[in-house]
Amino acid sequence: MDLATVIGMLAGFGLITSAILMGGSYQVFWDIPSILIVIGGMIAATFIHFSLGQVLRIAMVLKKTVLYRLPAEQALVQQMVNYAAINRRDGALALEQYIRDIKDTFLMKGLQMLIDGQKEEAIEKQLSLDIQYLQERHADGKKMFEFMGSAAPAFGMIGTLIGLIQMLRTLDDPSKIGAGMATALITTFYGAALANMILLPMAGKLGIRSKKETMVREMVVEGLLAIARGEGPTAVREKMQAFVSAAHREELKPKV
Amino acid sequence: MDLATVIGMLAGFGLITSAILMGGSYQVFWDIPSILIVIGGMIAATFIHFSLGQVLRIAMVLKKTVLYRLPAEQALVQQMVNYAAINRRDGALALEQYIRDIKDTFLMKGLQMLIDGQKEEAIEKQLSLDIQYLQERHADGKKMFEFMGSAAPAFGMIGTLIGLIQMLRTLDDPSKIGAGMATALITTFYGAALANMILLPMAGKLGIRSKKETMVREMVVEGLLAIARGEGPTAVREKMQAFVSAAHREELKPKV
Amino acid sequence: MDLATVIGMLAGFGLITSAILMGGSYQVFWDIPSILIVIGGMIAATFIHFSLGQVLRIAMVLKKTVLYRLPAEQALVQQMVNYAAINRRDGALALEQYIRDIKDTFLMKGLQMLIDGQKEEAIEKQLSLDIQYLQERHADGKKMFEFMGSAAPAFGMIGTLIGLIQMLRTLDDPSKIGAGMATALITTFYGAALANMILLPMAGKLGIRSKKETMVREMVVEGLLAIARGEGPTAVREKMQAFVSAAHREELKPKV
Amino acid sequence: MDLATVIGMLAGFGLITSAILMGGSYQVFWDIPSILIVIGGMIAATFIHFSLGQVLRIAMVLKKTVLYRLPAEQALVQQMVNYAAINRRDGALALEQYIRDIKDTFLMKGLQMLIDGQKEEAIEKQLSLDIQYLQERHADGKKMFEFMGSAAPAFGMIGTLIGLIQMLRTLDDPSKIGAGMATALITTFYGAALANMILLPMAGKLGIRSKKETMVREMVVEGLLAIARGEGPTAVREKMQAFVSAAHREELKPKV
Amino acid sequence: MDLATVIGMLAGFGLITSAILMGGSYQVFWDIPSILIVIGGMIAATFIHFSLGQVLRIAMVLKKTVLYRLPAEQALVQQMVNYAAINRRDGALALEQYIRDIKDTFLMKGLQMLIDGQKEEAIEKQLSLDIQYLQERHADGKKMFEFMGSAAPAFGMIGTLIGLIQMLRTLDDPSKIGAGMATALITTFYGAALANMILLPMAGKLGIRSKKETMVREMVVEGLLAIARGEGPTAVREKMQAFVSAAHREELKPKV
Repeated sequence: MDLATVIGMLAGFGLITSAILMGGSYQVFWDIPSILIVIGGMIAATFIHFSLGQVLRIAMVLKKTVLYRLPAEQALVQQMVNYAAINRRDGALALEQYIRDIKDTFLMKGLQMLIDGQKEEAIEKQLSLDIQYLQERHADGKKMFEFMGSAAPAFGMIGTLIGLIQMLRTLDDPSKIGAGMATALITTFYGAALANMILLPMAGKLGIRSKKETMVREMVVEGLLAIARGEGPTAVREKMQAFVSAAHREELKPKV
Repeated sequence: MDLATVIGMLAGFGLITSAILMGGSYQVFWDIPSILIVIGGMIAATFIHFSLGQVLRIAMVLKKTVLYRLPAEQALVQQMVNYAAINRRDGALALEQYIRDIKDTFLMKGLQMLIDGQKEEAIEKQLSLDIQYLQERHADGKKMFEFMGSAAPAFGMIGTLIGLIQMLRTLDDPSKIGAGMATALITTFYGAALANMILLPMAGKLGIRSKKETMVREMVVEGLLAIARGEGPTAVREKMQAFVSAAHREELKPKV
Repeated sequence: MDLATVIGMLAGFGLITSAILMGGSYQVFWDIPSILIVIGGMIAATFIHFSLGQVLRIAMVLKKTVLYRLPAEQALVQQMVNYAAINRRDGALALEQYIRDIKDTFLMKGLQMLIDGQKEEAIEKQLSLDIQYLQERHADGKKMFEFMGSAAPAFGMIGTLIGLIQMLRTLDDPSKIGAGMATALITTFYGAALANMILLPMAGKLGIRSKKETMVREMVVEGLLAIARGEGPTAVREKMQAFVSAAHREELKPKV
Repeated sequence: MDLATVIGMLAGFGLITSAILMGGSYQVFWDIPSILIVIGGMIAATFIHFSLGQVLRIAMVLKKTVLYRLPAEQALVQQMVNYAAINRRDGALALEQYIRDIKDTFLMKGLQMLIDGQKEEAIEKQLSLDIQYLQERHADGKKMFEFMGSAAPAFGMIGTLIGLIQMLRTLDDPSKIGAGMATALITTFYGAALANMILLPMAGKLGIRSKKETMVREMVVEGLLAIARGEGPTAVREKMQAFVSAAHREELKPKV
Repeated sequence: MDLATVIGMLAGFGLITSAILMGGSYQVFWDIPSILIVIGGMIAATFIHFSLGQVLRIAMVLKKTVLYRLPAEQALVQQMVNYAAINRRDGALALEQYIRDIKDTFLMKGLQMLIDGQKEEAIEKQLSLDIQYLQERHADGKKMFEFMGSAAPAFGMIGTLIGLIQMLRTLDDPSKIGAGMATALITTFYGAALANMILLPMAGKLGIRSKKETMVREMVVEGLLAIARGEGPTAVREKMQAFVSAAHREELKPKV
């Protein structure tokens, strides 16, 4: 899970929890029916909006994009440079023994194709298709988070309306108006916190993450194709660095 | 009706109904005049916005896109591959007897043209036109749902304003303010629930469904044209699978 | 006036009037100063936003686009096909006597140019220019309705703020707070009803109407040019039907 | 100042003033600190958003675009036609004596370049650049008005929040709550009136004015270039009229 | 720091502070927990939305773009013209001694490359890349400020909801409702002031600043390339002025 997300989530929940605890009793903020109506309503609307496949895929996308740690660019360049040297010296078959150490399935798949002696064009076509699948899944995920980020406050408001109407209808003792109003407002609070603390920022993160993951994948493809063409370590290093996005190239330069 | 929509609708209505029942009397939430002003006002505005033809067509679009079950891609590919084999072995006329088993009118129409010996170009032109009609109807339907999704909360607010003004005007007994306010807020609740639970998610679903239906139709056209050219089962299978969108190709591959 | 607009307007006003009457006294909803501030303020802002010419033209645009009945496509095709036959048999001059029966000024102008023996290019250029004027006027009208649809609720809110401030300032008898608030809310009600019942849906209708009117005009131009080239009835029919938008072509086919 | 703006401003302020006076005392609506916080805050935010040069230029843009009267198109065409005739008969130097009667600095500059014997290309380049400057200044002005139109209601809300917090904090006599609330709401009223009565419509007007002024300037350039090429009055008239936008061409035609 | 930003910030804070002080006690507006929830929540959401690198880079971007004073365009042109003269007379090496007086690192880097005898293409490629990095950082910064400008009011509302719920829950003494409401509203005030006074205008300023800084950098590149090609002072001056944006060219012209 990327560090900024962890920091942000912990800090955000810490702050809101502190604000609640400082005000006294936290129990009023824990209301199962209110959670059900906001989160349940949001999920129901998401099922109506998207197809079943898209909804079920979102968990996988989240796990893959947020928990999965992208290989460090510099280490990746070095790794590919080593493969290029081995390929030059001992041929592609000698790379077989390195495959089991690779954790990244995308690189593993590409290297296996290379060892299997597949042609450069076949490798490029297959891996480009995989990158395209990845981007489609990311885009679906981003759209879904944005939709949920607009549905959560809407169901928060619906919950508050239900609470208000019930409270006002049976209003005979004005001294109880406060408690009823407090309960009614809980769903609005849930919806606002959920959308602004998690859903909308996560939609943004998915977009940024998608851009970065695509870039790393394209760098790997570039390196694999150079190795497949039998190019040497220096050429592989140069080709891969040219693919690093401008912002990161600057950081990489002095160190490589 | 696609499964996700059914699940979402049932879950959403279940949740809102539970929330209402848990709060006690449900009668206050059932108010015919309020339903009339929100739904009636929304429909009236829709009539002013769109043409009569567009409004009347929406029911048909909804029935066709939501209730109608798209043929499974894999089964469809297999079916067309069979037709190609029959066409190769016994000629197009031998396909005549299979037509009565086809439930999809689009495929039926295309196959009939093929059996009638129409030229490849004529089949392509006619079916492409049919796909274009379909997309126009879907786009109209999506725009109409989006408009209704913004009109429903607006008429909810208008209903609440009418209720509030009447209640405040005749306010002499402050103890009745609660009941009056509750009644006034019902229309806001109807508008918000209608828009966020049904109209806006359905607009999204129509867009996703339109993309998928177009893809399936184009796959059928691709297969029919290959058969019309007298290509064999293998070529038909490959052509049709190339038309399957990236996301679905992955799922299809291992199984076919 | 197109039927959907009439139905929508009547239904909408009927609903809102019923809702008001069911609540008791309707007098509170009829407040001249409130009408003045919402409608007057909206018109004033429209004058500042647009040029004098654009504002004055809007009435004409409305009359022409909403009240004016578009000639039925099928009848129009038949009419042009007749002209083509007469032109073939008796020459263009024989069409002179049919001009006085034409109610559509656009068709009349085009046919007159044809009878006057003007060249095909001159007719096309002039009529295309007329269509372009039409679209510009429609687009201006749509933008103006959209602006008024956002100005009306804004002036409704301004009116309510004025009412609230006056009421709160002189508040000494809490029992009168209800009546003052009711009066203050009237302008918000006017603004919301005006925008959502009339202005915003009418902006949508103008856009749809503009698209349809342009299509009919282009069909007429296509037919006139074919007649000017001396083509026969069959060619004119085919050319005109090819110009009918996809959605309408389907309906026309079986009948012609 | 163009007529529609004058009419709109007078009518708008008249309406709001009447609404205030009808409600009784107008004094509550005149609150210097509230004016300071809304207008001052809006101007402060505008300084942070834009550069000093842009902010200072806005006054000049406003004066030039709104107060400055565009030369009537028809008169302008006639004027240029006369220049073309004189230029043909007596040569460019004979135009010298007409320069001092020209009020429009743009036309004056162009005509002076023509008399000075500058080449057609030089005149076109210089005047096109001047038109480009004009459009940039107009676009900056429009963006600034739009920003101010969103900042004014925001500072109105900030002022109301300050007033509400102070009033609620020191609330011991419930009978004073009305007066405090009234004062707090004044800033919201100022922000809403300022944005919807002046800033947002003026942003629209600047856009429309910019389009029209550009068109007139381009027509002048077209005429000057024709004269520079030694073309006769008829050619100049035709060239200039072809540059008039479609909407205006219609009005010009019958009269010229 | 550019002057307009300083003026705007001082004026804005002065106005808000005055408004608060005029209303009496300022203490109620200074509430550490409220500051924590609005600013902390906003920063937490920003961490979740953006990557760690982007968040950490924002401080640097801000310092560089707002505090850093852009070299005056005219002085810059004169400076480069001098370098061109020296380069012509004494060769590139003679420029060495001027490098230590340059404060702008971008110009320094370019001049050093020129003195080192690097080729025109190499200089252009490197400096264009640096400009591209700059624009990416600016665009990231602008997006981040816009996100924070929407997150701050959202967390202000969340804080107010927490305060309201706690206050209403424990409401037994109606006379304390004012004080509780005042405290709850503080976070809304912080969010609105932060967004409209600082974050949103600063996002606008970053965009305008980015456009201007890019223009100055491109002008420097143009001048350096001309010097590298051995062109004389006049050619350098002309080339650089052609790069000045239209709006500024007008101001420069009369003086150079």
